[in-house]
Formats: sequence, structure tokens, C-alpha cells
Amino acid sequence: MNIAKLRAFVFQTAVIAAIPTLALSQSVLSKAVRTSESAEPALVHTDQQAAAQQKLDALYRHLGRRPNIVWLVIDDMGWGDPGAYGGGAAIGAATPNIDRLARDGLKLTSTYSQPTCTPTRAAILTGRLPVRTGLTRPILAGDKLTKNPWADEIPLPKLLGEAGYATILSGKWHVGEQVGMRPHDVGFDEFYGFYEAEKEISQGVDKRRYPDLVLNPERLAMLRATGSSTALVHGFKGGETTEVEQIDSIEKMAEGDRTLKEFTVAKIADLAKGDKPFFLEHCFMKVHADNFASKAFEGKSGSKYPYKDDVVEVDAYVGEIVDALDKAGVLDNTFIFVTSDNGPQLDSWPDSGYTPFRGAKGSAWEGGVRVPGIAYWHGTIAPGRESDEIFDLMDLYNTSLDLAGIKDKIPADRYIDGIDQTSFLLADNGNSNREKVYIWNEANLMAMRMYEYKIHIKIVEEKAQWLNIDMTTVSDVGLAPWLFNLYIDPKEQYPVGHRMNAFLASMAAEMKAHAATFKKYPPKNIGLGQ
Amino acid sequence: MNIAKLRAFVFQTAVIAAIPTLALSQSVLSKAVRTSESAEPALVHTDQQAAAQQKLDALYRHLGRRPNIVWLVIDDMGWGDPGAYGGGAAIGAATPNIDRLARDGLKLTSTYSQPTCTPTRAAILTGRLPVRTGLTRPILAGDKLTKNPWADEIPLPKLLGEAGYATILSGKWHVGEQVGMRPHDVGFDEFYGFYEAEKEISQGVDKRRYPDLVLNPERLAMLRATGSSTALVHGFKGGETTEVEQIDSIEKMAEGDRTLKEFTVAKIADLAKGDKPFFLEHCFMKVHADNFASKAFEGKSGSKYPYKDDVVEVDAYVGEIVDALDKAGVLDNTFIFVTSDNGPQLDSWPDSGYTPFRGAKGSAWEGGVRVPGIAYWHGTIAPGRESDEIFDLMDLYNTSLDLAGIKDKIPADRYIDGIDQTSFLLADNGNSNREKVYIWNEANLMAMRMYEYKIHIKIVEEKAQWLNIDMTTVSDVGLAPWLFNLYIDPKEQYPVGHRMNAFLASMAAEMKAHAATFKKYPPKNIGLGQ
Repeated sequence: MNIAKLRAFVFQTAVIAAIPTLALSQSVLSKAVRTSESAEPALVHTDQQAAAQQKLDALYRHLGRRPNIVWLVIDDMGWGDPGAYGGGAAIGAATPNIDRLARDGLKLTSTYSQPTCTPTRAAILTGRLPVRTGLTRPILAGDKLTKNPWADEIPLPKLLGEAGYATILSGKWHVGEQVGMRPHDVGFDEFYGFYEAEKEISQGVDKRRYPDLVLNPERLAMLRATGSSTALVHGFKGGETTEVEQIDSIEKMAEGDRTLKEFTVAKIADLAKGDKPFFLEHCFMKVHADNFASKAFEGKSGSKYPYKDDVVEVDAYVGEIVDALDKAGVLDNTFIFVTSDNGPQLDSWPDSGYTPFRGAKGSAWEGGVRVPGIAYWHGTIAPGRESDEIFDLMDLYNTSLDLAGIKDKIPADRYIDGIDQTSFLLADNGNSNREKVYIWNEANLMAMRMYEYKIHIKIVEEKAQWLNIDMTTVSDVGLAPWLFNLYIDPKEQYPVGHRMNAFLASMAAEMKAHAATFKKYPPKNIGLGQ
Repeated sequence: MNIAKLRAFVFQTAVIAAIPTLALSQSVLSKAVRTSESAEPALVHTDQQAAAQQKLDALYRHLGRRPNIVWLVIDDMGWGDPGAYGGGAAIGAATPNIDRLARDGLKLTSTYSQPTCTPTRAAILTGRLPVRTGLTRPILAGDKLTKNPWADEIPLPKLLGEAGYATILSGKWHVGEQVGMRPHDVGFDEFYGFYEAEKEISQGVDKRRYPDLVLNPERLAMLRATGSSTALVHGFKGGETTEVEQIDSIEKMAEGDRTLKEFTVAKIADLAKGDKPFFLEHCFMKVHADNFASKAFEGKSGSKYPYKDDVVEVDAYVGEIVDALDKAGVLDNTFIFVTSDNGPQLDSWPDSGYTPFRGAKGSAWEGGVRVPGIAYWHGTIAPGRESDEIFDLMDLYNTSLDLAGIKDKIPADRYIDGIDQTSFLLADNGNSNREKVYIWNEANLMAMRMYEYKIHIKIVEEKAQWLNIDMTTVSDVGLAPWLFNLYIDPKEQYPVGHRMNAFLASMAAEMKAHAATFKKYPPKNIGLGQ
């Protein structure tokens, strides 16, 4: 047994051992059906499946091509930021465009991301938990991965490309910038954007926030030596990567999202004229710290704070991108999903988003992993729908393959944690096909949400003034499970494990079954630490 | 100087002394205009005033009578409970009817109540702060007031009645049940409802929650000896009061709101046929603890908890009452306002509402005083409006008088804290006429919200597991003001007084000016303790 295998074994044993040992091993809670060893069990809704398929078939017959798929991924925006989720004007940044999509589409109130950026971005493109791809935490400047995490993955853009889709990533990547790990190395036809997060760039240019780095030439040289990219780049599959612009000032950074939006809007016009359906993932750099309002949006929010102005800016661009689809005549054939990659980053407050829930980015509390999720498809998703049923952003993987007519291409040789949610999203009264979501933080299985219950087996504890990503520790909970009912206690304040003891063994059994999937499909270690 | 005068003087001196003493006494913050010693300063928006008046005039010319005024006051519902405010299905109780009114009317996100029930109910009917009417805290079973607070007040129903309105209170009163203090003693033509809150009734019938009271005959006799009413009663101005039904079981209590709704729906049909415009205040008993789902709604919420089922029930009745107005053909001539009397009562959790904010009922934190507020008027208030500008429930007093065409009847011989918000609510792009709200808790001036800032001069501190109404103390803050920016910090966690020191003296000056109004118009003591 080599070191990698040993590590995997130790990890896998640890994962399984971490589950509370209780008498029963059979769950009475589950109605989900396991159809294969490598597929996440799903709820089966035959009628709504037929209804959704009928819609897709009719559209395909009518338009003669598969639907376009557009994801709008906002960075670090909180569940509570959009008006449709109780924020908006009430917290100083109105979001009329996002709200309109929520009102005219399906507003999901229980959409789950991973607790941080890289893990979410990897998960949605692979349909797999970060612990399976090895991308368990944000890649930091200077990180040298011991293994290319993408080498043995089957990314969504690759499968869609093989099925005749044009595939574009516009915006933030943050899932590897070494050769072989870039968007145009893993299946995207074209990449126009940034490898890193907003903060990685501002560290080298913002002398007010980072005087110790920016005003000290020696320290600045060290920063540059990490090799972290600060450029807007443009790359094509199998071709050259060119640097469009070095972002060497706050002013340039502030305009980054405008540039990305202009690219996307122009690209949509082009793509619509072409003969291929397209998959377009537009990843905003904003509203990740550090926020700098672009010129046209400075002071345009009610609040005037940079974060708020940037929310207004992003919302405007969401509107412009949807308008571009409309003007190009493809709105009726385009599935749009708007979301955020994780909860707000409270340790950069006040340059920070808002969540009504406990915790923030980096934690397994709802504040860390519950994000806005809006599915909009003019003419296909009935307007005015709202659902609290569970949606995991990883489900976008399976769902997109189904929308593209290639659900048979969902890999069977590895564990896929995503679930096909096409019928949930498209059928007029569709229910979720997902019964539960497992919440991981790096290599720790922390919690599970099932129905309105959330059970924690490990707890992120705040060690600073407020719960944030940086100043926390992970503790085992032991045999007195912290169980919350999110309907009566959305803020996870009052454990009800003592009331719900009849279901504790079943919940443990569900988590054990999940942990057991790592026996046949061991976790991957790429050097990010497990 | 007699005792009452002395008390008033001591109190008034204490109020004024409590304001932080800072160098400047001039505020640079205010744009509000004081038009008289007895009127709260207001922002002047001449154009929108004209626009609103034009709408009212046109309607009056067309329909030949003044508009009906309907208030739907829900008991103890949290800001976060309705779907339109981020709750609804997401927390296990969908509120499609309230959400529809919010969507098709004006959704106010900064509506302020008093921290508890009696104070709010008195304030909205007098346009005056509780400390001016003496109704500073909930009247408790057995409370004997030393003075009838209503004797020298000018209640809204009295003025509207004199102007030709039919005036009805259906539901909870809780502002005095002694003769002279009942709804039909203070201006309402008719009262059909309860004198007390839901909990006052259940204390005598719920053997599971209150075994020490219900199962101990001696204790039960003591409870009855407090004289607190547990009956549904029916009374007419100047006439008899009859007992409709003794509520002597949980089952009867559970159906209370259904009965009230049936009364209101039937009454609307009658009133619409009559030749008078009407003022109808429908005060739900629910969702105040203790909640018991009525038969038809048991288990009808996603959550199944009694509080949640009752939210669903109340929401359904809101829909039925609006439908009744529609069926009676008077919807176009009816101003509807939906709100709650204070924040959720967390110490009865899980029989409790939800607020994303800090604190709860009984506190001056946002969780205690920020409530849903929806203004709906089919054909007159433009649909889809949303505003974070400040609205105080006391403003309903002035606004209603203006709607009824008798704004000249707004009393000038006493201080009126309400502001006429007709132009804010009715003009298509109306702005609030209120610049700030003073937040009192019993006889303590606690805080002020002005723009997005909130300054506390006294703090309610939680002394129990969570912040609630019962286990708190009030502390002076002293000269290091706790100032919060509610846009970047809706949960009031991170004081920004150190950043905002340029405005501290101005804020103190605003509070001093407020305190100074008590010199000419001293507070009233009715025996509730000041």
C-alpha cells in the first residue's frame, strides 16, 4: 500500500468512524431509491418526470436544438442579499433584476453550496463532493498541487462539448491555474476571465488595505513570487492563452466585472447566430472582498458602501445578460440558474454580504452553505414558483446533462453526488428529487440536512468576535447530537436532539450509508491537505 | 405640585437627563420641518402630496364617498415570517395571500411598532407614544388602572365616527376592559372580539402547559379572581355588551380567529350595502402564544407546528377578508394595511415567530420593533412598490384622518407623534415623510432610527439563554453610543459609533429635541408604572 493509498484509507476510516455509533443501523427516514452503487439515492417522481420530459421534447421538436444553459454565479453573495430573499432595498442594495427572475421563475429557498469557493466551483462542474475530487479548500496563491485534480475527472463542459455544445467560461475560475487545470484544459472551448479571486488581486494594489504588502517593495516581490495571476486572460481549447490586461490598479479591478459582462453580452450575440447550443458559465468576480465600486456604480446603492454598490452592479449585469439572451432571440430556449458559491465572508465586514442564518462562509452552519438559487426559463419554468425543497448546486451537473439530452453520459465509473433535478425544476408542480444534503468542510463530514432537520456531527466554533472563515476550530460533537429544526429555528440556536431521539439512529444510518460510499470510491488527495 | 404632577416632572426630567450630553446642540442631520409645537416634524414633499391628493379627489368625485380603511393587525408575528420578507415556505409556513398583497401593493421594510402589544394598539389609535397616553406596557390580568387612559384621549374611531364613518373593531383589544376603556366606549360603533391576548385565555384551560394553574382548583380560583375576561363579547356604542361565548377549552380557543373572520366577512357585506364609509380594524388573536391550530388548519403548514399552522390560517383569513371586500364591490375604495403589533415572542419558543434581526418582542432592538407593513389599495397604490423608508405604525392615525378628508381634525392641543404618510403611500414614487423614529420601552427612551442609522442610549440586555421579553434588564449606555448602520449590519452586532462620531452630537440633539416635547406636553401616568 503506497502513501497515497494509505492516506486515503486512513481518511476513509476516519470518516466512517466519525459517525455516532448508535444501536440501529436501518433508517426509517429515507424514501430515496439507490439505483446504483455510484449514484446518489434520489426520490422518484414518475409523473413529474414525464411532464418535464414532455416540455423538453416539445421544445426540441419546435426549435430543433437543445437548450442553452447559462449559469450566473455570484461570488460570496449571502442568502439574504437579494430582495427576493428578504434583503434588497431593506439592507441598502436593491436587486430588481434578480428579484424579477425569482418572481418569474422558481425561487429555491434551500439551495446548498460548499462552504467555500474552490470546492463549490469544482463540485458543480463534476457533480462530485470536493472530498472526491481533492479540491477541498480554496487554492491559495503559491499552492502547488501534487496532482492535477482534473486529470481523472469528467467535467461538465467536456461532456457538453462532445454532445455538440459550445462551452464558455466568462469570469472567475479559481480551480487551478497550472497548465492542465485551466478552464480551456478541462473542456471549455473558451475562457475569458481571471484565475483568482478579487482579493488575490487587490492584495498587490490596494495600499490602504495592505500597506505592509504594497508599500514594502521586498514584501511585494514576495507576493509576486507566489506566482498568483493578476491578469485578465483569454484562452482557447488546445490553443494559446493571451494576457488581455494586467490588473495593476484598484481602478482597473473595479471595472473587471463590466469587462466580463461586455464579453458575455457580445458572446451571446455570436453564439445565438451559430448552429450550436451553448453552455455559458458566467462567474462574477464581485461581490467577493475586496469590493471596489466601478465608476458607473459608485454611490448607486442606498447604502453607498462598496459591497452594496457592487451588489447593485452585479444585479444590473444579471439584467443585461438576460436582456442579451432576449435580444438574441434565444430566451425561450435558455435555462438560466442564478446562485452564489457560498455564504457571506463575515471576516471582511463591512465589505461583506448578509445572511439571516448562523455562521458565514467557511462554516457548515446554514450561513455558510445556504445560498440563493433561482431557476428561470421563460416559457418553460412556470413563473411565481417557490420551493423550500432541497437543491444542491452539484445537482446542476446531472441536470445540465439531462437538459442537453445526454443523461446517459452521467458517469457510472465513479461516485456522482449530484442528482438530476430536471423534473423538479421544469414540471409545473415539481418536487425535489433530493432528500438530503451532506455538508462537508474540507475533509470533515460536518452535518446533514434532511427534510427540515439538520444534524451536526462536528461543529465549527467561533473563536473570534463573530463567526468567520478564519478564526474557527472544528470540534467533534460526540454522542449528543446537535439537531436543529430549521423551520422553527432557522438560526440553528436551539438543539432539539432530545425531542427527536426517535430519529437519531436513522440519521446516523443515513450518514453511515454516505460514509460507506467512500469504501468503493475512496477520496482523492491532491495536496490540499486531508 | 400634587403627586401626579411631581411624578410627571421627575419622569420628564429623567427623560431629558438620559440623553448623552455632548457639546453641540444643533443637528446637521435633519431635513424635517417642525410646523407646530405639538406636531412631530415631517419631511415635506410638495409634488407627491399633490399627486396623492389628486388620486383621492378623483376617487371621491367618481365614487361619491370617502374611502374605507381596513387594518389587519396580526399578533406577535415577526418581520421574517411572511414569504415576502424572506420567510414563508422557507421556514415552513407559506403565506401566499400576504405575499400577494405585498407584491401588488407597497411593501414597507422599515415599519416600526412599539416593543409590545398594548403600547402599539394604543399608539395607532391615538397617534401618540405610549408614554404620552400612559399605556406603556401590556395590561396584565388583574391590573387596576388608577386612571382611564382613554378619558382624555381623542381616539381615531371617535374622529372618524364624527366624520360619518361606521367604525368596527373585530378581534383582540387589550387596551383596557374596564367600563370606559372598551372599544365601544372610545369611539367604535361595534366591538366583536376579546379583551385579552390568547395566552390569558389558555392559562385557564391548557392543562399541559399550565398544570399548576389548571389542575389545582385553588390556583384556578385565584386566576379567575384576577377578573381577566376569557369570553368572546359583542358590544355596541352606548349599548349593551353581551357575552357571545365563554372560551373554556383549547378547542374553542383554536376556532377563535375563524369566528372573528366570519364576523368580519359578514360585516363587510353589510357595511358595503350601507351608505357610510367604514373603518374596520381586524385584530387577529393569532399568532400570539399560545397557538392552537384550528381544526381546518391543523397540520396544514409545512412545519406542522401550531405557530406555523396558525400563520397559514391567518394568511388564509387575510385572503378571505380581501376577497370579501372584492366581492362586496368596495376593493377599489378601500385602503388596506397589514401589519403586526410587535416582534416575535421568543420566550415562548417554539411557539414563536421569526425575525432575522437581533432581539425580540419587548426589546428596542430591531427584532422587537420592526414589523411587516404592507399598504394595499387596488387601483390607487401602484403594485410592485417596495420601500425601506421609515414608517411608524402611529402614522396610521394621521394618515387615516387624511384619507377620510379630515386632516384638519388632527388634534393640536396635545403632542401627536404620528405623521401623515398619505403622500408616501399613495403617490407612485412617494417617499416617506418620516425621517426618524424614537424607540421607547415602557418609560425609557431607548433608541432612535434615523436614515439607516440606529443609535441606542439604553440597552436591553439578555439575561437568559436568548433575548426575550421576560429575562432582560435595561442599562444605560453612557457616553459611548452604540450606533449601528442597519444596511451593513442589519443584526445590530457591530457598533460604528467610532466611525460616525461626526454625527453623534447631531443625533443627541435630535433626541434632546424629542425629549423637550415632554416639557410642554408631560407624560401621563395611569398606574402602569413609570
